[in-house]
Parts: sequence; structure tokens; C-alpha cells
Amino acid sequence: MLIEVQKDVLMRSLQHVIKAVALNGPAPILQGIHIQAASDRVIFTASNTSMTIQSEIQQSSATLNIKRKGTIVIPSRYFFEVIRKLRDGVIVLELETEEKLMLTIRSGHSNIRLCGMAPTEFPYIKREEEERYSNRLQLNHTLFKATIKQVAVMAATSENRPVLTGVSFECNDNHINIMATDGVRLASRTLHIASSSHTNFKVIVPAKNLLELAKLLGDEYKAIEMAICNNRVKFIANGLKVESALIEGTFPSINNVVPRSYLCEILVDRECFLAAVDCVTVLAGDYIIRLAAESAQLKLLSRTREIGDVEHAVPLLEMRGEQFSISVNGKFLSDMLRNRECTSIRIRYAGQTSPIVILPNDSLKSTFFLLTPVRTQYEYNKSK
Amino acid sequence: MLIEVQKDVLMRSLQHVIKAVALNGPAPILQGIHIQAASDRVIFTASNTSMTIQSEIQQSSATLNIKRKGTIVIPSRYFFEVIRKLRDGVIVLELETEEKLMLTIRSGHSNIRLCGMAPTEFPYIKREEEERYSNRLQLNHTLFKATIKQVAVMAATSENRPVLTGVSFECNDNHINIMATDGVRLASRTLHIASSSHTNFKVIVPAKNLLELAKLLGDEYKAIEMAICNNRVKFIANGLKVESALIEGTFPSINNVVPRSYLCEILVDRECFLAAVDCVTVLAGDYIIRLAAESAQLKLLSRTREIGDVEHAVPLLEMRGEQFSISVNGKFLSDMLRNRECTSIRIRYAGQTSPIVILPNDSLKSTFFLLTPVRTQYEYNKSK
Repeated sequence: MLIEVQKDVLMRSLQHVIKAVALNGPAPILQGIHIQAASDRVIFTASNTSMTIQSEIQQSSATLNIKRKGTIVIPSRYFFEVIRKLRDGVIVLELETEEKLMLTIRSGHSNIRLCGMAPTEFPYIKREEEERYSNRLQLNHTLFKATIKQVAVMAATSENRPVLTGVSFECNDNHINIMATDGVRLASRTLHIASSSHTNFKVIVPAKNLLELAKLLGDEYKAIEMAICNNRVKFIANGLKVESALIEGTFPSINNVVPRSYLCEILVDRECFLAAVDCVTVLAGDYIIRLAAESAQLKLLSRTREIGDVEHAVPLLEMRGEQFSISVNGKFLSDMLRNRECTSIRIRYAGQTSPIVILPNDSLKSTFFLLTPVRTQYEYNKSK
Repeated sequence: MLIEVQKDVLMRSLQHVIKAVALNGPAPILQGIHIQAASDRVIFTASNTSMTIQSEIQQSSATLNIKRKGTIVIPSRYFFEVIRKLRDGVIVLELETEEKLMLTIRSGHSNIRLCGMAPTEFPYIKREEEERYSNRLQLNHTLFKATIKQVAVMAATSENRPVLTGVSFECNDNHINIMATDGVRLASRTLHIASSSHTNFKVIVPAKNLLELAKLLGDEYKAIEMAICNNRVKFIANGLKVESALIEGTFPSINNVVPRSYLCEILVDRECFLAAVDCVTVLAGDYIIRLAAESAQLKLLSRTREIGDVEHAVPLLEMRGEQFSISVNGKFLSDMLRNRECTSIRIRYAGQTSPIVILPNDSLKSTFFLLTPVRTQYEYNKSK
């Protein structure tokens, strides 16, 4: 291997793949980055048991010049830190012989030699296996990234029910529904599929891998491709490939969870409501806040014994139905209101034991959130 | 107490004083912020056993309107978080009676009540005691801030020798020497005193308090005042007062430590040298790097067994004396080269067992660093 590459381009690929390095894993080979210089591109790959990230740089006169092909696995931490410390400009990576497993890095007045590992055992995404990915579909990149950020945070973080640590992807004809729940809250969004060659499918993808993917995705791509084989899913966008294991099991059905009729529906300004929730949650013991919808306003209340209490009023833009008051987790509610593009939020109340339904007002059909109320012994209204 | 204050101005004062709150301390009163509304200003104070920070806001039509005087201590965490979440604009703080100890905070549609504590036991900086601070001197604010950042990081962090966790301030006529050492490295800088009424003194101030102070100091002040009484030092700059306990004991003399003659002196570009040190230190076991001054260049070398090695050459701008090579802690060396205003660095070598002397080239007399070499069994030069 002998390549010349611009530092900023190399760093960007390394920043992508390093997220999948199994830094504390038992296998030294998985603490490395697999570098493959092919004839027309250099491919960097890192993998832990659950996720594999691959980033490639195309041969080009401005950024990458491949003079000799070759493959090696290099300890990620040292490689990343060394490259990061080098000054901007051309960096030369040279592997004299495949047997010697010693990578030489040259830049300006620096000369670094790093001991590598044999690439044969590395579980990288094999190019020749791509045809096994039979289900392929393309999604709008911006919408996909926003959806993952909204939905995947609602997944469970405890491993008590492994399927709940994942995000459900259910594909029906030209739509895909993306959903996550931890049993208390639920987020669901349906996206249109641009172009595809697939059959209908249902898979569960680990939420933490999706959140890493969302962080990696820049703003410059137009579309992201999703491809599924038996037990893995692959996301492909502009030189970046992220492969994840799937979670086995059946995702719970929401047919019996979503309330079918409502006692009250209110509309509030999103930013105004979010600011109120955040303010009131500061003083809320166990994050429990009280929502009380009255004639023209939504009152938010919380108190912590011996510390104090807070009351915040948000004007109602609309109200249809009877007055209600209900206690919910303010932190969970705040998560649902954040990162939304809409200006107002519709809240539907279906009784003290039903989850409240939260709908961004400008995309009624495609997105909704459910939040199960908290039963509180303390009656806020009586204490005022 | 009844005051109206702009949120940004209030937040700024709280951000200052919260650094001194004893969050994990045993005394609940020290987890609070002391608020005193006087006739012409509001004074916020927080204190742990070692440091007290006071920030005041002057009455002004644009930012603060004091309608009724009063004093209370409020739990810092809740107060800070609640104020932070409120929207920009006017915030009203009201204490109905001093006996009730309940502070009401109003802003827009928010109404918050926080339980307070009695202010009588709070150890705040008493204004009436200021005359006890007999030694007063003024320093250039920018130079003082830069000096603290350079010098205080060299203090010891372990409590084995308490005096070494402090920074020595030694005042002689119109100069003050500021110095810190952990036994391996030492930084010393001498500043000119602008105006003063003081006698010569020597005190030791906890480095961690000074580093907090340096973070608090903005860039807008012209001068900082330093005042000393028996066992405390106070720094005053534009509405901000930071009081620190002094460390008892005698700071070690450096008369026998600074080499009096040199075998070699070299001059290198600072940025170029710093980049080389950082790059070489990445692969250095225990941060030990080798410096080898040869005819026209300074070579930097390091290696970690089974990982790799790195060699970096920096051109010498000047060299007087014999060639040398010596091993030092690369992380400590990097600290000395960082945050410097100068473009080049002078290094003096006085033998294998003497510390190297590092001098910023444009302030020869006022600043110097010492770095004790590390004895290494491994001979880098022979291995190449």
C-alpha cells in the first residue's frame, strides 16, 4: 500500500468509522481500523459486534492518489490521534510488504511507524456480498435523519425487553413506518419511499446504532438507501455505509394502545409550551408535572416538598371538549416537543388512564407521540 | 425584597457565583446563594470553605430596579436552573417578609416560589471589614489572567505537600513574582505593579481557586485589584470579588534549582515545536519523549513497545554550544508551550541531571519555565 491523501479528507473518514470501534471489547482486531487501498478508492472499516461502519474515499487528483494497493488493520486510537496531530496537507501512508504489518505515516517533518494486524480476520462489510441484500429502498435523507432523532430516543435503554431497545421499521408498499416505545412513551412517524425494489417487511434495528448513524449523517446528502438481508440492515449514503445487526422478536402492536376517541383536544404554540415544560420540570420531583387545561389556558404545575413550586400558564390556541388535568413525566414530554419543525402542537386527552396523544400540527397523519400519564396521590388543584 | 432585573444580567451574576457553591458540602447554607438587595445594588454571594465569590449588579434604569430592600439565601441549584429556563426579559424577585423565607420569582406567565434559608449564618464577604485588607495593589487585567493560566496549571494536584498545591505571590516594591511548581516542573512570571499601597509580602494562594478566578475574568476589564489581609486574599474587578483562603507554609526557594550556566542554548519556532511535541507525545509511553539537538535541527522521538514509534524534526533557528539529547515529559512540555503570546522559544540545556530552562523569546526577564528531565534506560539514538 502506498497512498497520498489530504489530511482533512482522511480525518473525516476516520471520524466516521471510529464510532464503531469496539474500544473496550475483548478482541484486539476489533479495536483496529481496517484500511483497504483498492485500485480506485480507499475503504476504511471499523466494527463492533453490533455495528459496522465503512467510509470510502474515491481516487481523485485533489484528495487521493493511490500508488500501490494493499490492506492492513491499524490500532484505531493511536492512528486517529497521530493523524489528528499532523498538520494540514498531504499525508503519505505506506505499507512496504503485506507480511511486515508495519504502516509508515509521513507528513512534513514527521515520520511515524505503527504496528498493524493481519486483515484476514476482520469482519468488514464484504463488497461481493451486496447482492444478498434483496430489499432496497431510498428515503429522503433530511427526513430520515430528523425521524431517527425524534423516534430513536423513545426506545428503552434497559435490556429487560430487548425488542423495546430497538426501533421498528415496517414497510408497506410505498410507505415505511418508523416507531419506538419504552412502554411509557411512544413515537411513530411514517415516511414516503422515493424509489425502491423491495417486498413488504418488518425489522427491529437497535436504537443506539441508529442514533450513531444520525450523528454521522451530514446535511449534504440527498437520499439514503436502506437495504435488508436476513439478519442485518445496511444504510448507504454518499460513501458512507453503516451496517447493523437486527433485533429478533416481535414489536408490540399499538392497535389497542392509541385512543380511538377523545374527551378533549387542545392546540398550543410549540416553543411556548416547550419553554413552560422545561421551566416547570426543574422543580418537579421525579419529573412529574401537572397539566391543567382550563377555558383559555393550559396551566403547568409542579412542586418539590421543602424546595418550592412553580406555575406556568400557556395560552390555548384552540380547545374542543371538557376541561381536564393530568400528571405526566415532564422530561419525556420535553423530548417529544424538541427538534420539531412545526409551530404548534395538538394534544388529545382521552381520560385519566389513557395515554395523551401529541401531534405536530402540520404533519397530522405522518407523526404522533403517545405519553402514558402518571398516577399521583397529591392533588395539585386542591392545594392551590 | 422586591426587585426587577433583566434575565441576562441576573444570569451573568449567577454564573459567576455558582462556581463557589459547595454543592457536595455538609452545610445546606453553603449550597445556597446569598442575595442582598441594598439601596443601590444587589449583591450575590456564594462560598465554600476555601473560596467566596461575590457579584454585584448596580441599580440602573435599563437593568435593575430595586423597589424594596431585603436579604435571603436561596438553594443555588434550583434557583440557577429556574432562572436559566425563564425567557429573556424582566424577572421579578420578591420576598414578602424576611421571616417567611419564601422567594417568589415572576416572569411572563411563570410564577415560582422557592423556599429560602436565613441569611444570618452565611459567611459572605462583609463590606464593613474591607479596611482590614491593608495590602492593596493593581495589576494589568489581561496580563494577570494570562499569567494565572500559564502558572497555576504547574502547581501540584496531590496534597502530599500542601504548599505545592498553591501559587506563590511575592511582592517586592513595584514588581510581583507569581510562581508554581509540582517538584518536576516550574513556572515563574514577574509582573509590573501599576499603582499600589502595600508593603512587601509573600503569600501562597490555592491554584484551583486561581484557575476558577481566571475562568471568571472576562476580557472587558482594564485592571484587577489584589488585596491581602492576615489569612485571606481578595481579587476585585468590575463588580466581581473573589476571596480565597491562603495556604500556610513556606514556598520552596528556587535559588539552587535554576541552572547558572548552560552547555547549550537553542531557539525554535513555538508553534512548530508545540505541534511536534503533541504529535510525538501521542505514541510516548508514560508521555516520555526524547529531544535531540543536532547541528541544524531538533529531533523529537518517542516509541511505545509493540505499538510503534514516531520521529519529528524541527528546524533550529539558533544553536550555541554542544549537541545534546535528553528525555522529558511531553505533556508537561506541551503545557509550557501552550497559551503563549511569543513566536519563538529559547531552550537552555545544563547537563543530564539539571532541569532544562524554557524561555519565551520576547519576555526573557519576566517569564521562565523549568522542566526536570526523566532518566530513561532506553537509548533512542543507539536504536535507530
